Amino acid sequence: MRLKNVKGAKEIIEKSDYIIKNPEEIKGSYDKIFKNENDIHIEIGMGKGDFIIEMAQKYPNINFIGIEMFDSVIVRAVQKLENLKLQNLKLIRFDATNIEKIFEKEITTIYLNFSDPWPKNRHEHRRLTSEIFLKRYDKIFKENNHIIQKTDNRKLFEFSVISYTNYGYKIKAISLNLHEDDFDSVETEYEKKYVSQGLPIYMIEVYK
Amino acid sequence: MRLKNVKGAKEIIEKSDYIIKNPEEIKGSYDKIFKNENDIHIEIGMGKGDFIIEMAQKYPNINFIGIEMFDSVIVRAVQKLENLKLQNLKLIRFDATNIEKIFEKEITTIYLNFSDPWPKNRHEHRRLTSEIFLKRYDKIFKENNHIIQKTDNRKLFEFSVISYTNYGYKIKAISLNLHEDDFDSVETEYEKKYVSQGLPIYMIEVYK
Repeated sequence: MRLKNVKGAKEIIEKSDYIIKNPEEIKGSYDKIFKNENDIHIEIGMGKGDFIIEMAQKYPNINFIGIEMFDSVIVRAVQKLENLKLQNLKLIRFDATNIEKIFEKEITTIYLNFSDPWPKNRHEHRRLTSEIFLKRYDKIFKENNHIIQKTDNRKLFEFSVISYTNYGYKIKAISLNLHEDDFDSVETEYEKKYVSQGLPIYMIEVYK
Repeated sequence: MRLKNVKGAKEIIEKSDYIIKNPEEIKGSYDKIFKNENDIHIEIGMGKGDFIIEMAQKYPNINFIGIEMFDSVIVRAVQKLENLKLQNLKLIRFDATNIEKIFEKEITTIYLNFSDPWPKNRHEHRRLTSEIFLKRYDKIFKENNHIIQKTDNRKLFEFSVISYTNYGYKIKAISLNLHEDDFDSVETEYEKKYVSQGLPIYMIEVYK
């Protein structure tokens, strides 16, 4: 997700206590950052942060880390957090292509919400559910792998279902129309807009 | 699928050369029935037979067997076949619950088209993609297992995707809107009606 530049985005991000400034050095010691050994859930591509912020508020006994590569996007989350004091939320500006550089075996759950579908075949390896990414995730999951994905993109979803299961993941839950079902689900900003148009959201939860 | 009774259905079925009258005795010797060793594809719950008849016409080098448990339904297929001489098609009136009684390791592909969704949890074992049926299919597949399923029922489809993959099947292809995609697909009578209403057909192809 790209947005128009926010003036002074870099400075706003730099000043925020929510932002992990040196993630490659923190790797493996998030228990110290959060001052507890609670489970750590991360969202890769958190966008403007609606989902991860609401999750952090809803589940105080889970630690959340939102990852987003663009200054112009992550700054929106930082602004939303200005008047909130959430002890269980951190944000990292980083490219997920190198995710194994900022975590070691310490993650419990990965959320992938409305990830870029990269529709062209030659960009398949850029999709966050491609085999190359699933291999990266293997390096950062603590004991068991656990991914929850939501998307409105049918082609990305079909690709992901095949990719997960061929890689050895089992499916815990699947919905081809999340908002007709009874799942307890926190919505992203994108999702709210999409659902209001009556279009289906696809969800899958996998583990191995 | 139940239809109102067709007068003389039993007799019409008895007289047809397309019908295998003693399937439990034929078990294991379909190469003699078809007089060749071509692959055998079966459709479980063929309904009025539009799909399997068109497939048999389209692919003369594959042998097809349609299975349907109700006289009142299978008779419709027999009537459609009256003026056709298809050497590669047979029909069996039989309850698929006992499918391993009529085939041994001789089937290449199973088609499941618009199967009864059995929506109540306590009827899960009656769904044609439940574990209990997947175990039955293991006994009739020749070398590799290969199932192609189509349905308009979201809940049955979600259930089936989980059931297949938990049972060890890999997904070869999946579509959450078959008629927007480019698959070469023969339509059932039910499907034609459904698609004309603009509703999505779900398809999955699995193997192990």
